[in-house]
Amino acid sequence: MTVTKKLAALRNLMQQHNLTAYIVPGTDPHASEYMAAHWTETTWLSGFNGEAGTVLVTLNEAFLWTDSRYYLQAGKELEGSTIQLMRESDIDCPSIPEWLCRNCKGTVGVNPEMWSANAYNNLKETLHEAGLELKSVDLIAPLWTNGRPAIPQTPMYEYKVEFAGESAAQKLRHIRQCMAQKKADAMIVSALDEIAWLLNIRGFDVEFNPVVISYVVLEQNHCTLFVLPQKVDAAAAEYLKREQIDIRDYQEVYQYISSIRGTILYDGARVNQALFEAISPKAKPVNAQSPILIVKSHKNAIELEGERKAMRKDAVALTRFFRWLEQDAFRTEQTEWTLMEKLHEFRAMGENFVEESFGTIAGYLGNGAIVHYAATPDNCAVVKPEGMLLLDSGGQYLDGTTDITRTVWLGGDIPQQAKLDYTYVLKGHIALADIRFPRGTRGNQLDALAKQYMWQAGITYGHGTGHGVGHFLGCHEGPQNVRTDMNPAILEPGQICSDEPGIYRTDRWGIRIENLVAVQPAERTAAATTEDDFLCWETLTLCYYDTTLIDRTLLTQHEIDWLNAYHKRLADEICPLLDKEEALWLQEKCKPIA
Amino acid sequence: MTVTKKLAALRNLMQQHNLTAYIVPGTDPHASEYMAAHWTETTWLSGFNGEAGTVLVTLNEAFLWTDSRYYLQAGKELEGSTIQLMRESDIDCPSIPEWLCRNCKGTVGVNPEMWSANAYNNLKETLHEAGLELKSVDLIAPLWTNGRPAIPQTPMYEYKVEFAGESAAQKLRHIRQCMAQKKADAMIVSALDEIAWLLNIRGFDVEFNPVVISYVVLEQNHCTLFVLPQKVDAAAAEYLKREQIDIRDYQEVYQYISSIRGTILYDGARVNQALFEAISPKAKPVNAQSPILIVKSHKNAIELEGERKAMRKDAVALTRFFRWLEQDAFRTEQTEWTLMEKLHEFRAMGENFVEESFGTIAGYLGNGAIVHYAATPDNCAVVKPEGMLLLDSGGQYLDGTTDITRTVWLGGDIPQQAKLDYTYVLKGHIALADIRFPRGTRGNQLDALAKQYMWQAGITYGHGTGHGVGHFLGCHEGPQNVRTDMNPAILEPGQICSDEPGIYRTDRWGIRIENLVAVQPAERTAAATTEDDFLCWETLTLCYYDTTLIDRTLLTQHEIDWLNAYHKRLADEICPLLDKEEALWLQEKCKPIA
Repeated sequence: MTVTKKLAALRNLMQQHNLTAYIVPGTDPHASEYMAAHWTETTWLSGFNGEAGTVLVTLNEAFLWTDSRYYLQAGKELEGSTIQLMRESDIDCPSIPEWLCRNCKGTVGVNPEMWSANAYNNLKETLHEAGLELKSVDLIAPLWTNGRPAIPQTPMYEYKVEFAGESAAQKLRHIRQCMAQKKADAMIVSALDEIAWLLNIRGFDVEFNPVVISYVVLEQNHCTLFVLPQKVDAAAAEYLKREQIDIRDYQEVYQYISSIRGTILYDGARVNQALFEAISPKAKPVNAQSPILIVKSHKNAIELEGERKAMRKDAVALTRFFRWLEQDAFRTEQTEWTLMEKLHEFRAMGENFVEESFGTIAGYLGNGAIVHYAATPDNCAVVKPEGMLLLDSGGQYLDGTTDITRTVWLGGDIPQQAKLDYTYVLKGHIALADIRFPRGTRGNQLDALAKQYMWQAGITYGHGTGHGVGHFLGCHEGPQNVRTDMNPAILEPGQICSDEPGIYRTDRWGIRIENLVAVQPAERTAAATTEDDFLCWETLTLCYYDTTLIDRTLLTQHEIDWLNAYHKRLADEICPLLDKEEALWLQEKCKPIA
Repeated sequence: MTVTKKLAALRNLMQQHNLTAYIVPGTDPHASEYMAAHWTETTWLSGFNGEAGTVLVTLNEAFLWTDSRYYLQAGKELEGSTIQLMRESDIDCPSIPEWLCRNCKGTVGVNPEMWSANAYNNLKETLHEAGLELKSVDLIAPLWTNGRPAIPQTPMYEYKVEFAGESAAQKLRHIRQCMAQKKADAMIVSALDEIAWLLNIRGFDVEFNPVVISYVVLEQNHCTLFVLPQKVDAAAAEYLKREQIDIRDYQEVYQYISSIRGTILYDGARVNQALFEAISPKAKPVNAQSPILIVKSHKNAIELEGERKAMRKDAVALTRFFRWLEQDAFRTEQTEWTLMEKLHEFRAMGENFVEESFGTIAGYLGNGAIVHYAATPDNCAVVKPEGMLLLDSGGQYLDGTTDITRTVWLGGDIPQQAKLDYTYVLKGHIALADIRFPRGTRGNQLDALAKQYMWQAGITYGHGTGHGVGHFLGCHEGPQNVRTDMNPAILEPGQICSDEPGIYRTDRWGIRIENLVAVQPAERTAAATTEDDFLCWETLTLCYYDTTLIDRTLLTQHEIDWLNAYHKRLADEICPLLDKEEALWLQEKCKPIA
């Protein structure tokens, strides 16, 4: 079916349901960052393949809202579709609710599975103020019958306690205590990383995230996992039985929820509207942040030790990659894509490596300045032994999740501005990594520390400075982060964040330096005047910085000491894991700077 | 009447009104920081003279909630009163609503004039959830008939446009435009600084704040000032008439508000509950931040020039004071109080000086570590030519408002820790003053810049780093500030803030360094990569730093350059205003450090 035929069929259904508009957002029922193909409804409907987009269809028109990363791609892919591109960054681009309030009357339809309860409620209130109604109805399922990918049926598996550090029984006890404090009889869990963490299960359902597509309803005396039966093999069934976790079919969750009485906790930011609508009028729903979110963010000692192990494996892979890049790569033609493949090869040699934790960003020269750049085999730059290369990549190991960015100079004379930019970024990266801060501090209070030096030069960047990171789970997890946003979450011991300032010079280069760092208690100093506890960061990531890009005159002695100590630690920990030639090469990269 | 008799009389009234509890907060109907004596109801009822306290009276018990500054004083002043002290900083101290919800049933009474509409509403909702009711009734007025100070009747006066920079007509036009954007027919203004700014009027009704006790109701075609008629002399009446501002009696505001129809804007954080209750059911009240707040915070060019003038007068006064302190003071015995008097004497010599902008804090040795320390003639330390003195003071000049803190070493050997502390504070003070930041940045993003160096030593402080400052108005004004709080206000050109980090070492010393700084547009740099605008701070305050307290090894060359440039500017601008001996003395204090 062509896009125009699909739109016509959708409009036909809309008229049957008395709808004047229908919205198809690019999400899934679990509010996931990465989705299974089954839920790529916007792509199916519009032909647009970008990762972020929402389609709005009215009886006469159709639109795709997307962000600046995808304007070019969307422009091409929407050709002939009659769908108009809405550029979100344009100053006069209305939001979808704004557009509806101005241009529509009557009733707007959405599939409630694809909207968090909070987002649905906000949309409903906004529409209501303008006299519009919102109706829950899935109009894509009846149309997308031919060739729709199934919900993944790959097997799930037990995530061993030797990696998780805590059994599912212990986690369930802890979360049930949190529920009891809120007087909740039951809790609906629909975020896939929360379920994987809670039950110590993992799977292969989604690229980059080792999660299992499922729901959980947790009660004080029952824990029920709703999952496709095909996914549960004998070993998994045995494990779940041992942990007293009941299994039901994935789609039974709605019926099950409707049968619960008493107080039901749900996190409206994550739990979808369809689940919320399933709650019985005889039950009392309470909308509150999931207690799993915060408990999961506090990594236990085994998880942290696993992260350190994963980092050593990443360090070995990256050392081998950068040595190859310097010594061997350019004997044949290289592209951004071949570099990505080679890095994968080195990383995949690591014990317990499962997959990448996100799509590697290899940005050569001006491509490095495109923040969410993604090279493809068909569309990637040839890389030569000259100029700047930005490389942002990460691995999922059974031990933990990694995410690291290094920017290196491949050859030729280094412009002074490149050195200045690299050194501003490095100074900010060190300032954040090295700070002590009082317990109670939020990430948004620390963000400017990473920016202060480039700010003095009149330079800034638009992305977050640090995102929370999961443990063999999502590369992005909350509630902690280091951003300018008004996130009320305070930084707490055991939480992992990235530290990744950057400078992006259009058509010239992008420079980003990223380590993962974990919050740790800081020792009380002799000079302390108060009873306040201080926290600090432990740097987890191990990989050399390209010192040829540093303008040493801009570094303080303290920064030079920090850098030399980091490089010494890197060499001490990683050289024993390398062969002699590799170790000598890394020693050279880790030479102290004066 | 004794306190116990007052409590008995109040309980008698409470029973007549069927109340089980009555709350008397330490505020006035205008949500003022400094109050006229007429409204000191907590002091009248309890005998407690501190500036922050709330009394709760039940049929059997009575309590005073206050903060740690006043525990000692309250303990003494409440003796024999039957009122129990509630220490707000104690971990198990409930808030007043919490205490009521746990211990009371029935109806709680409050005077709605003494509660902002928002605070009243929050209290009502909290009580309601616990099954309690809230009732609006003033039970103090009928009891406090004997000896109650009148509402101040001091004359108001026109604040000339040569100081204000903009006529009342211009301001009224601007604010009426803001109202029109929100489709408001009328706006209630009850914050005294907003009224003084809007109408270009000033008065003597409250210590430290040159405001006029009054209300304003602003409509598109009328502006009505509600003020005691005794306060309006012929000149003031003439001025108000010229500006087309109607005058009505202070208490008529309630009747007037009840007669308005249409949409009425009120800022529930400032407008009291009694005014809100006066709004007719036929009108449509809209609760939104007062547009005056933000417009007033953007100082115009004349206001900024006035601030600079005021700073030069402060600089002359402070130079003379510190020279006297070094050369002459200790020929006779000095106390914290005599120093305060002497400083007042020097400041009062400045042209257009009106009064102090707050009670001077002169904290000698350990007293400097008490953040809100206030010496009195009867209770102040003897000061000797040795050790640390913290001096925080400010002036109200017709040109503008000042607020400055300097910490100086009076003599004897300087402990190394004192130098470290002073240098950490100075480095933070410079880091904040010297930062450029992108337009859109909030103050809470910059707070850590001032703390980063002391944080690295495991030291922090509990007060805000910077408060907004008014122009010949309140020494504390919003919405801008530099604090850890989640204040959403972004910093905008023309706003003035203090920059005042500190370190407080109990029983040893307090160190604080404070300048006022104004937000200014920053010039685009050659290195800029984006179209972002940057802002920066202009340092307004002029007074030398005690360089004997600096550990120069901790300063970067950039910080040394900043300090030397500041001292050069100070000497260049202020020496011409001094006599020869004074100028030589200041030159010496402003000598560059290596």
